[in-house]
Amino acid sequence: MPVNFTPPLPEHLLPIKGITLGIAEAGIKKPGRKDLLVIVLAECAKVAGVFTQNRFCAAPVAVAKDHLLNPGSTSACPIRALIINTGNANAGTGEGGVADARATCAELANLLGCDSRQVLPFSTGVIMEPLPLERIIAGLPAAVADLKADNWFAAAQAIMTTDIVPKAVSKQISLDGTTVTITGIAKGSGMIHPNMATMLGYIATDAALSQPLLEQIVRHAAENTFNRITVDGDTSTNDALVLIGTGQGGNSVISDNESAQFTQVQNAITEVAASLAQAIVRDGEGATKFITVRVEGGKTLDECSKAAYAIAHSPLVKTAFFASDPNLGRILAAIGYAGIEDLDVNKLQLYLDDVLVAENGGRARTYREADGQKVMKQAEITVRVVLNRGQASTTIWTCDLSYDYVKINADYRS
Amino acid sequence: MPVNFTPPLPEHLLPIKGITLGIAEAGIKKPGRKDLLVIVLAECAKVAGVFTQNRFCAAPVAVAKDHLLNPGSTSACPIRALIINTGNANAGTGEGGVADARATCAELANLLGCDSRQVLPFSTGVIMEPLPLERIIAGLPAAVADLKADNWFAAAQAIMTTDIVPKAVSKQISLDGTTVTITGIAKGSGMIHPNMATMLGYIATDAALSQPLLEQIVRHAAENTFNRITVDGDTSTNDALVLIGTGQGGNSVISDNESAQFTQVQNAITEVAASLAQAIVRDGEGATKFITVRVEGGKTLDECSKAAYAIAHSPLVKTAFFASDPNLGRILAAIGYAGIEDLDVNKLQLYLDDVLVAENGGRARTYREADGQKVMKQAEITVRVVLNRGQASTTIWTCDLSYDYVKINADYRS
Repeated sequence: MPVNFTPPLPEHLLPIKGITLGIAEAGIKKPGRKDLLVIVLAECAKVAGVFTQNRFCAAPVAVAKDHLLNPGSTSACPIRALIINTGNANAGTGEGGVADARATCAELANLLGCDSRQVLPFSTGVIMEPLPLERIIAGLPAAVADLKADNWFAAAQAIMTTDIVPKAVSKQISLDGTTVTITGIAKGSGMIHPNMATMLGYIATDAALSQPLLEQIVRHAAENTFNRITVDGDTSTNDALVLIGTGQGGNSVISDNESAQFTQVQNAITEVAASLAQAIVRDGEGATKFITVRVEGGKTLDECSKAAYAIAHSPLVKTAFFASDPNLGRILAAIGYAGIEDLDVNKLQLYLDDVLVAENGGRARTYREADGQKVMKQAEITVRVVLNRGQASTTIWTCDLSYDYVKINADYRS
Repeated sequence: MPVNFTPPLPEHLLPIKGITLGIAEAGIKKPGRKDLLVIVLAECAKVAGVFTQNRFCAAPVAVAKDHLLNPGSTSACPIRALIINTGNANAGTGEGGVADARATCAELANLLGCDSRQVLPFSTGVIMEPLPLERIIAGLPAAVADLKADNWFAAAQAIMTTDIVPKAVSKQISLDGTTVTITGIAKGSGMIHPNMATMLGYIATDAALSQPLLEQIVRHAAENTFNRITVDGDTSTNDALVLIGTGQGGNSVISDNESAQFTQVQNAITEVAASLAQAIVRDGEGATKFITVRVEGGKTLDECSKAAYAIAHSPLVKTAFFASDPNLGRILAAIGYAGIEDLDVNKLQLYLDDVLVAENGGRARTYREADGQKVMKQAEITVRVVLNRGQASTTIWTCDLSYDYVKINADYRS
């Protein structure tokens, strides 16, 4: 029944001047897998981040936000390193979890010769288990010894949990003749419905940007990419997207957000973020289909989002995609309960790719089930809803719901 | 991994004076199953109903609401019959669907010798397929020929779709020495997250009640039972709960909503509704566990509901229940993203039955995984969250998410 679906492996990744990465096997959840990543930044590197809005945010999220806001230094570039572990989320761990997150920062700072507030911590894995602090501390020297510029692919592997493939992408653009580079990695497969950022994403560029513009770009990129994906509607406790600008690319520093160079860099970083976010959906737990949901002609962005997420979250819609079954009334039902005030269902159109499925409150006269069936059998499908009541629109990305989603999440801790 | 779980069969059902029911095999979706039900009411019977708030509400819902509001007669008891089919929802069928629903009413009215506006139509099944009108019309004479008072169990069977067991219950109470009877049937298994009422529920009593009190009771019963269950978060296009009062029970007509008799009858009808609603969850598509989610100590009912539904809708929580895996951090994560403003997660407690799982933002000191594991293996589990910030509380009922949910919904049309 399901189609064959293998998410693509990352292409060749380009190093970013001013950044080295080191990986170790710390045995955090089980031995024999890379589960600890250290990213070290040159002194000039600026950092901006967006984090989960889950009220049960993980201890490392609280500490990373604190260190970004209160770096304990007047330097324009206070952050010197990131420490990231998989296998344990250090979430739902109370005050002890915060102390553990701070202890990992202190240990890495000690090894690197900086202050512990110059380190940002990140964790992903099981919730409500104490962080195995000793194993992380024991693993850190090996990670530091491994530091090198050309370690992005290994880093993408080291942050995986239920991910099947590592997610990473590089891109280069020319700014007035100077070539700058962007490289990003991300992890995420389940508990994916970011509400501010994704599970974990790290994007770095050597382009020189002012701190306010770096912050503007990370918000823009998150809002238009990671915040537009959903696998299961579960917003993680640990979501974070971090953007690092090392400033070593050789371009003149960009500090005007109305300049052409700003637009170029923002678009390129957003493209990298979109690639990573879509890679997370393609590797969604148990996913066999990649679904783009586009809602157009709404009165407001909010109502477009409501309709798009109602479709993307509906277990009935998702299982119909899994089965390649054009049981498309389920999409109409989801639009109907999305909570759009005064929606006149007789005015909307529903398309599957370019096949008009429904209009005038029911099946389109021209619709043939064979046409819907053909699209449903594809591995990539676009659902398009035209509300015909305004000018707003949005696009989100999701996947289907398969036996394997249940299997992965029923077996996750075993 | 899943526990054995068989929803109970209904006990002996009691007829209601003034009501007869007839069943037929009309071959609406496939031959050889009861799929058409006619309920005929005595002249004195009053009817009240609540219906889905899905904007894509089905054609029969629109027609039933119209006939209840505009009966085309000045009688206090204008409604004489209900016609209910399974196999086709007549939803997402545009103006043609409305005409088809009206045609089924007209045909039954013709057979019974009443006006077509005195008939309420209901449909459940596949969405966005034209109603096979000829088959329903051809099946109606057999249903009318089958009319009898003692047909409630067969009626409960006739309204099943993906349901495994029929859902029905009877109850008797004494009103000042006069025994009155309540009997209800319901269907529903998937696309269950009623927002006003359930899939289809019909409750009848011979207790004599005024029309306003009948309407008050049906709203009260829906709000406290059918509106408090969820299987998959999908709000159906066809949800309806109908309460019929035939007035033939021999009690003095109840018309004061502050009387003891009113409270007695309302409580009894709400109990019947709760049994039916919980039976729907127990028979939830693929369900192996029955989960009660209780949220206490909230500032408002709304925030209690947000937390309860976030838990009940989380695919990660539901798969953990399926696996009997006390991966309870997933419940904390769901509370965290429920959207409760200024929630202090350090103040709440999480219990699994009477086991304290989490407090002070993390795992409780006294919690042992073996205790959580023991509760998770049960077929019936209560999740209790104490927010400790106010006096509001709510209880909802849901089930787990299993392979079979995916299988049932991936195979539904085949």
